Amino acid sequence: MTFHSMWAELLPIGRSSASGGYRRFAWTGADADCRAWFRTQAESRGLRYELDRNGNQWAWLGDPAEGDAVVTGSHLDSVPDGGAFDGPLGVVSSFAALDELRARKAEFTRPLAIVNFGDEEGARFGLACVGSRLAAGQLTVEQAHRLTDGDGITLPQAMERAGYDPDTIGPDPERLARIGAFVELHVEQGRALDLSGDQVGIASAIWPHGRWRFDFRGEANHAGTTRLVDRRDPMLSYAETVLAARREAQLAGAVATFGKISVEPNGVNAIPSLVRGWLDSRAADQATLDTVVTGVEKAAREYAEAQGVELDVVRESFTPVVEFEHALRDELARILGKDGEGAAGLTVPVLGTGAGHDAGILSGTVPTAMLFVRNPTGVSHSPAEYAAEDDCVAGVTALADVLEGLACR
Amino acid sequence: MTFHSMWAELLPIGRSSASGGYRRFAWTGADADCRAWFRTQAESRGLRYELDRNGNQWAWLGDPAEGDAVVTGSHLDSVPDGGAFDGPLGVVSSFAALDELRARKAEFTRPLAIVNFGDEEGARFGLACVGSRLAAGQLTVEQAHRLTDGDGITLPQAMERAGYDPDTIGPDPERLARIGAFVELHVEQGRALDLSGDQVGIASAIWPHGRWRFDFRGEANHAGTTRLVDRRDPMLSYAETVLAARREAQLAGAVATFGKISVEPNGVNAIPSLVRGWLDSRAADQATLDTVVTGVEKAAREYAEAQGVELDVVRESFTPVVEFEHALRDELARILGKDGEGAAGLTVPVLGTGAGHDAGILSGTVPTAMLFVRNPTGVSHSPAEYAAEDDCVAGVTALADVLEGLACR
Repeated sequence: MTFHSMWAELLPIGRSSASGGYRRFAWTGADADCRAWFRTQAESRGLRYELDRNGNQWAWLGDPAEGDAVVTGSHLDSVPDGGAFDGPLGVVSSFAALDELRARKAEFTRPLAIVNFGDEEGARFGLACVGSRLAAGQLTVEQAHRLTDGDGITLPQAMERAGYDPDTIGPDPERLARIGAFVELHVEQGRALDLSGDQVGIASAIWPHGRWRFDFRGEANHAGTTRLVDRRDPMLSYAETVLAARREAQLAGAVATFGKISVEPNGVNAIPSLVRGWLDSRAADQATLDTVVTGVEKAAREYAEAQGVELDVVRESFTPVVEFEHALRDELARILGKDGEGAAGLTVPVLGTGAGHDAGILSGTVPTAMLFVRNPTGVSHSPAEYAAEDDCVAGVTALADVLEGLACR
Repeated sequence: MTFHSMWAELLPIGRSSASGGYRRFAWTGADADCRAWFRTQAESRGLRYELDRNGNQWAWLGDPAEGDAVVTGSHLDSVPDGGAFDGPLGVVSSFAALDELRARKAEFTRPLAIVNFGDEEGARFGLACVGSRLAAGQLTVEQAHRLTDGDGITLPQAMERAGYDPDTIGPDPERLARIGAFVELHVEQGRALDLSGDQVGIASAIWPHGRWRFDFRGEANHAGTTRLVDRRDPMLSYAETVLAARREAQLAGAVATFGKISVEPNGVNAIPSLVRGWLDSRAADQATLDTVVTGVEKAAREYAEAQGVELDVVRESFTPVVEFEHALRDELARILGKDGEGAAGLTVPVLGTGAGHDAGILSGTVPTAMLFVRNPTGVSHSPAEYAAEDDCVAGVTALADVLEGLACR
């Protein structure tokens, strides 16, 4: 099955006809369809299919018990109304790269696996990379049990309703210990490759990033009859905080976004009692990120106090800076040719990214690297997300080269 | 059945145990329970129960065909997480006032009716006073068919699912022509009576008011990887507009509120593609209201343009100033005693209000008046909405006096 036909099979799954974007949320029907697709791809290639205890899917070539395996893959779930490439490009390219290696009659000296990590985007339960975090012990079973979606359904309930056993989730060190190298291919979520004119790049690091929930609590009241001076309107504090976040990020050369909000009672003629806003912020280093978040929180507290509004700030998730393993990164650069004509004749720049990935989670335990494929607009997490087919094919070739270089020595 | 026991029966219906507020939305189960309660109250008093074509409930004493009827009542639905008094106080007081008149052995010379208007708050379909607007011809059948709730269910679908016939909605001039006077009792939604030290007041006018939907459209993108300069983030324009609305209202001595928001895709790590905010604004006169709304829209357009965001502003509803009929108002003041010891020994101030009511809708067709009952904090549209039982009883007595004065001459 070609890259093109694999891609065409995945395209309709979980696509909203209203927005044109994807709604492939963990443990929903769309997620089940993606998982069925993965299993079919694995089995049709004679790979051994495995579902691990944390809902991650694996397709093995060779015996994992041998250890020192080379693993590639990504995820198939999406953000709300996300694009087609973020995640699926890595999984489809993995199968296509294996096909390419088989066409080259490559002989494998290490076990190889393709993986689909569950719930990478965290669109449903608010925490990203749940499948890899659980496996790596970066999310405890107790924490996972407390994850709840917008309808009040917990993660274990959602897994159970989807036909999975939630009682076995938890750290999986034996599985990770078998992995000698993990390489994740991903569409770039910025314009660095477009600006440098390259099709493929290698990741240097993932910026530290986190999510903070700002709960502004005021007093619900009638929007028509309550004098302005009698109001404790949390929407005003929220609005000032949104603008403060942009200012702080701009000053620091970082990014900060309020993209999600929940309002109670959310009625046209009611002053809100609660405005809950989520801040996503990332920066090239920890100190800069601290400066931004501390600045936003300080400003928010001043606004809230001036308006008689109570403020709680909760850090919902945090991922420190991830420096990908230098030895593996250098090996990829050698294979692909870094900053000049290399072994494979490519110019491959090395670049940092503000996006989190399963590769970032695994990098604490396993030598890990990432390949990026050019994104001509940089747009991601949107139906407009795009990569040209030429660049996708270059990505498959680069991934095949890397896997051959690592697993067929 | 006493005021107290009627009140106790209604209290649990549609109450959220989480917020303590009410969620009695049109054509839901809670609404059906309220309607069943109304019908039981009507029939247990030997009143003739009628459901009109627009979903309003009527309880008749005497023959409506005689015309020149005196009608009292209010509504039983609520805003999201609203209080217990807004609406129900008027309906319960109407039944209690009738009981009081029967205890006084009053002899009715005009037909009397108690009414429960459907969907006054507009919490579900976004337009207030749907039942009275339809009857008065202020909402066309075509417009009503386009009303849609947050789940995409249209008003006719919702009526049908609740067991009502949506095919007969529309103007009901014959019904309104039978009404000689409509008096609505309502909890005050401000502190005027509390500040003046009175239990009951008479309405002079309802401020002109309206709802405007502001659609800010930007570009969805990854919150971690999109450079600030490449963003078209509609949350920023929204935030600036929220603050502009407060400034404009303050300058003009009016009120303006953004209490409802809807964001797409509403993901923590996605820059929104759409932020939809609803402006509710009201002022003592039309010119002032125009100044506020024009000012907010102008500011919003400037912000949006500067940020590469598209803006559509749609006026979703508008109600001009309502001056209640002076003759009826003066008659109420005479019966109750205005600004001094009157016939009934009460001091009754006359006051304006920023809140819309079915009485405001009917006032274009029918001589209409309103009574307000003191609200010690002014809080409304919130679980904290309150009126003391003493004041509620004073309201029942005042309403009984008014109905006796009008219908028992």
